[in-house]
Amino acid sequence: MGRMEAPKTAISPTRQEDYARWYRHVVRAAGLADSSPVRGCDVIMPWGYAIWENIRRELDARFKATGHQNAYFPLFIPKRLLDAEGRHVEGLASRCAVVTHHRLVPRPDGSLQPDPRAALDDPLIVRPTSETIVGAAFAKWVRSHRDLPLLVNQWANVVRWELRTHLFLRSLEFLWQEGHTAHASAEEAYEETKRMIDLYASFAEGFMAMPVVRGRKTPRERFGGAVETYTIEAMMQDGKALQAGTSHYLGQGFSRASRIVFQTREGQRETAWTTSWGVSTRLVGGLVMTHSDDDGLVLPPRLAPAHVVILSIARGDEPRGRVHEYIEALARELGAQRFGDRCVEVLVDLRATRGGRKPWEWVRKGVPLRVEVGPREVAAGMVTVARRDRGPREKLLMSRAELARSISAMLADMQKNLHQRALSRRNERLRLVDAHADLAAFFAPRPPGDALRGGFLLVHWCGAAACEAAVQTAFKATIRCIPTAGLEGTPWEDRLVEEGACIMCGSASRERVIVAKGY
Amino acid sequence: MGRMEAPKTAISPTRQEDYARWYRHVVRAAGLADSSPVRGCDVIMPWGYAIWENIRRELDARFKATGHQNAYFPLFIPKRLLDAEGRHVEGLASRCAVVTHHRLVPRPDGSLQPDPRAALDDPLIVRPTSETIVGAAFAKWVRSHRDLPLLVNQWANVVRWELRTHLFLRSLEFLWQEGHTAHASAEEAYEETKRMIDLYASFAEGFMAMPVVRGRKTPRERFGGAVETYTIEAMMQDGKALQAGTSHYLGQGFSRASRIVFQTREGQRETAWTTSWGVSTRLVGGLVMTHSDDDGLVLPPRLAPAHVVILSIARGDEPRGRVHEYIEALARELGAQRFGDRCVEVLVDLRATRGGRKPWEWVRKGVPLRVEVGPREVAAGMVTVARRDRGPREKLLMSRAELARSISAMLADMQKNLHQRALSRRNERLRLVDAHADLAAFFAPRPPGDALRGGFLLVHWCGAAACEAAVQTAFKATIRCIPTAGLEGTPWEDRLVEEGACIMCGSASRERVIVAKGY
Repeated sequence: MGRMEAPKTAISPTRQEDYARWYRHVVRAAGLADSSPVRGCDVIMPWGYAIWENIRRELDARFKATGHQNAYFPLFIPKRLLDAEGRHVEGLASRCAVVTHHRLVPRPDGSLQPDPRAALDDPLIVRPTSETIVGAAFAKWVRSHRDLPLLVNQWANVVRWELRTHLFLRSLEFLWQEGHTAHASAEEAYEETKRMIDLYASFAEGFMAMPVVRGRKTPRERFGGAVETYTIEAMMQDGKALQAGTSHYLGQGFSRASRIVFQTREGQRETAWTTSWGVSTRLVGGLVMTHSDDDGLVLPPRLAPAHVVILSIARGDEPRGRVHEYIEALARELGAQRFGDRCVEVLVDLRATRGGRKPWEWVRKGVPLRVEVGPREVAAGMVTVARRDRGPREKLLMSRAELARSISAMLADMQKNLHQRALSRRNERLRLVDAHADLAAFFAPRPPGDALRGGFLLVHWCGAAACEAAVQTAFKATIRCIPTAGLEGTPWEDRLVEEGACIMCGSASRERVIVAKGY
Repeated sequence: MGRMEAPKTAISPTRQEDYARWYRHVVRAAGLADSSPVRGCDVIMPWGYAIWENIRRELDARFKATGHQNAYFPLFIPKRLLDAEGRHVEGLASRCAVVTHHRLVPRPDGSLQPDPRAALDDPLIVRPTSETIVGAAFAKWVRSHRDLPLLVNQWANVVRWELRTHLFLRSLEFLWQEGHTAHASAEEAYEETKRMIDLYASFAEGFMAMPVVRGRKTPRERFGGAVETYTIEAMMQDGKALQAGTSHYLGQGFSRASRIVFQTREGQRETAWTTSWGVSTRLVGGLVMTHSDDDGLVLPPRLAPAHVVILSIARGDEPRGRVHEYIEALARELGAQRFGDRCVEVLVDLRATRGGRKPWEWVRKGVPLRVEVGPREVAAGMVTVARRDRGPREKLLMSRAELARSISAMLADMQKNLHQRALSRRNERLRLVDAHADLAAFFAPRPPGDALRGGFLLVHWCGAAACEAAVQTAFKATIRCIPTAGLEGTPWEDRLVEEGACIMCGSASRERVIVAKGY
């Protein structure tokens, strides 16, 4: 019995034991987010916000490089504008925050209440998304084909009332970007839709080291009012899917509602074709669930707020002085190196704490490299280096000069390694299933402590809404997408489009879809 | 009569004729902002948002350089939290957006209404400022003196219900940053308060080329609950004051309400001292009103979204080809130059439009340098250059190489020149007034078409609230601040602190205050 003792981990429970609690503990232990007095709204703490800033900076540069400009539209949408939009609004109206008053007044007991004399004639909705309010502006800005394409993006907060919330993955309020574009032809708008989902995929893979499948959503899963919705779907370590970004081809429906009309080259009036696309702070949650381990957060270097932390492990005043001097010089050397389009970002931790607590704090925060410096290292001109993608006790001793020389390559290697690791993990859990019984077995309830058995199933689907609904009812799983890219190099790459029988009803099917449980 | 014809300007009316309409026209003609279907909320258009992005990037870097970290706090504040805060909340509660429902449902006629079954037990306030919600987080994060100082900033939108709104200067919703810090001593918190107002002043002068007076607000004009409010006050071209940024020393009042308590070095429990400070998109309005002229927007190069626009003035296909080639090469040469910490940002306008319309568009958008290239310039290896800080018809002919060599210096010269011009303009309208009759004469109603006669008056004030209220009642003017810096080099520099008699009541006064009409 004694020899079975589990290895100590910095996060408890482990992923295997209880994935949902593991996730919450990783987020808290890394200082990414904290709860607030507002139900379902979290505080994004500095370390978490710094990750979002890196995501934002990189995406923003890519949007601008593809011709988009930022703007800012009002937070509030007058209810009367929504009244006009039936179909699109249905899903959102049932979960939106409604502003009805513009003043609080004190009650006799001193507490405040909405002032009945300050009720709004037309209530305001806190934006759940901005198609409506952006459309009203576009209708004014677009006159001629020369005003098109109009390529606008906004970084903003939005609110969707959710009953069950989940740190970063689902909250009442979240931060996102929403692109809105208008075009003079269906083809151009469709190309834009695909350009942006490709941009998201390339960002997720290259920057977040997070493998994604690109695909089309089924009609049931489309954004309300969209003609086509493209998605990127990432697999979390429990095998569940995370919809990490979407790009919608909206046809002329929204334009018609907003009256975005232009004069064509030939002098005729035509309704514009529009798109919208977005990613949100849910990416931070996806990042955590993709790379982190039982010791806490693991950050791909390209979006880590800091690349390296240098820890003083000196005791006593005299050695501490020399160690700190050595560390300051080292920090300057490392900070002068480049990684990607940034300088190497260096943190220094000179706090005098007892025991091994200090290194573990940085392990849990996911800093890619930890460098420890004590009197021994100083005497030898060396440093002790630990990589966050290796075991926490695996350390390299190298010369100070060698570290400065190799740090950029080491970070690049980690970035590649994390992507490779996530890709292998995902591909191992990607299965082709053709028998209904196998589908049922896969989604059968699992014993507790066995949280990591999910996955993406490639199954035939006939296209009928009834079969899609049956998947949901029977297995609490959804058709994540009809995959179009992102499975290259897997054994199933060539088996996505082939004749087969719908896994639910047996009717003819010509392509496979991805079924999984989702966040 | 015939010879009196006014010179043609690109904006009509002129500043002199109708300052308020001139301002609105400048904003619209430059494409900075547009109205929206939401009363009092404007759309910030791409050109206006790009200016805000530059403001934000520069301030953000300065905040980080002084040890602050960004975070994000919820948009909503539960009403029950405000109930606890009496004094601070008074002013804000009377003009805040209140969320009372979380769902809309269709009426029989198909229009939507708040669902009576989805009423919130505790309404939510859309943040007018975040002291309350930040305080709740700080109370959790601060345990020991080792957790202090806690230096946090947030970039966010806020909502304050206003009856009268003004593009950028006063809107229901605006974008801002709000810094919130907690400290282990009153001295440290006070130092932080002053550090941040100094940072704002240095940013306004150096980056926006906007002269500001630093000073303390009177008790009446302080932020509710603040012990001391510091402000920077800029003078617009109509002589009115714009409060462009504030920094508040909050003492222990907010900490007590939020229970931000820490263990001192000596092991005792102590309440923290806090500060808050902010600037908003109102800075964009201040920028417009500081530098623009009767031809439209004038942008200081350091925050211009583009430094130079190159215009093709070619006609006919053959010359156009050569001109465009020349322009592309020139754009690359100029884009390779540095200005400040950015590359020189170059726009190219190759549109074939008739007449002089094209250059005037860029004049109205305020781009610092316009470069015109036609067949003549190509043949001679020259360029025609116009500076936005000179008359629109004043042009320089120079060699292409000379432009590349001198562009950075030219931009630096414009930056300095705009600051100098704004400073002279302000100092001309800065007056020392000791007689009540002179004060009354200054604020006497003016004939229409004479909009530019306002100014800052340095007057003695006894410190009594009654005298301050009387200034407001009699002249619709306010005490902007008790100046502490920013008047160096004026004739009045040494006359701010001296014995005198209150301009309202004649009682003894020991220092002068600035009285002006404000935005």
